[in-house]
Amino acid sequence: MQKRYFEDFHPGMVMEFGPRLVAREEIIAFAAEFDPQPMHLDDDAAKNTMLGGLAASGWHTCCLAMRMIADGFIINSGSMGAPGTDEVKWLRPLRPGTHLKVRTTVIDMRASKSKPDRGFVTLQMDALDDAGDLIMRMTFPWMVARRSAGAAS
Amino acid sequence: MQKRYFEDFHPGMVMEFGPRLVAREEIIAFAAEFDPQPMHLDDDAAKNTMLGGLAASGWHTCCLAMRMIADGFIINSGSMGAPGTDEVKWLRPLRPGTHLKVRTTVIDMRASKSKPDRGFVTLQMDALDDAGDLIMRMTFPWMVARRSAGAAS
Repeated sequence: MQKRYFEDFHPGMVMEFGPRLVAREEIIAFAAEFDPQPMHLDDDAAKNTMLGGLAASGWHTCCLAMRMIADGFIINSGSMGAPGTDEVKWLRPLRPGTHLKVRTTVIDMRASKSKPDRGFVTLQMDALDDAGDLIMRMTFPWMVARRSAGAAS
Repeated sequence: MQKRYFEDFHPGMVMEFGPRLVAREEIIAFAAEFDPQPMHLDDDAAKNTMLGGLAASGWHTCCLAMRMIADGFIINSGSMGAPGTDEVKWLRPLRPGTHLKVRTTVIDMRASKSKPDRGFVTLQMDALDDAGDLIMRMTFPWMVARRSAGAAS
């Protein structure tokens, strides 16, 4: 697929990635390294928590979604990074065995006023489970090069 | 240290954790798994990016900070989880060799009106480099059990 620039996106554009099977072992391995709370580490301990059973760290969901959009379009684009994210909502547990999907929707776009070589694309990123229910939602501003300026440099 | 509950926090309370050395190898390993963009993977490729040299994925900074507060106070508390985060700002690159520190500040507290066994603590979480400059800032609502209700259950 051709490398994507600012001009290749438009408001309302939807891209979907996955499914990507999330295994119990990777949920536990991630938690052991970055979020060692009982509900992310151990089935029995997790039963007595708010999650009612083993589920991935919310940060793991963020990282898995990041990887899916990196492979999906970020790496093969004029990406110039993101300064952060707006609100991140963890809405449902990400359970072992889920076939995770990610759906990104372009909700706003604007060319940079000060730097003509780039623009800003506001992306809503949803993570969905097998039933299509929302596991996570976040919105973030993504900075991406313009094709015209990119070609001239 | 004694297990912490809602009653053990107060607005304005500051907790600091670290330093935690962040090695080049772990920056690259994290990026290879979750955020395989050139600026997080390879010194030479990173020089030509917005970051001007190798730096950790912003998601890696989130995960490292999570681990530091998990060890610092979350695990040994009446934690009932967090439904997400408010805005996450990645302000400066996290470079290899940084001795990362995390500072959490209690910026708001309220008891749950509907569930007397818990309360909400709004935490600002800052990640700082060796110079004390801000690498990342986020704010998130943390749900934690009350000691009284906890003791009665």
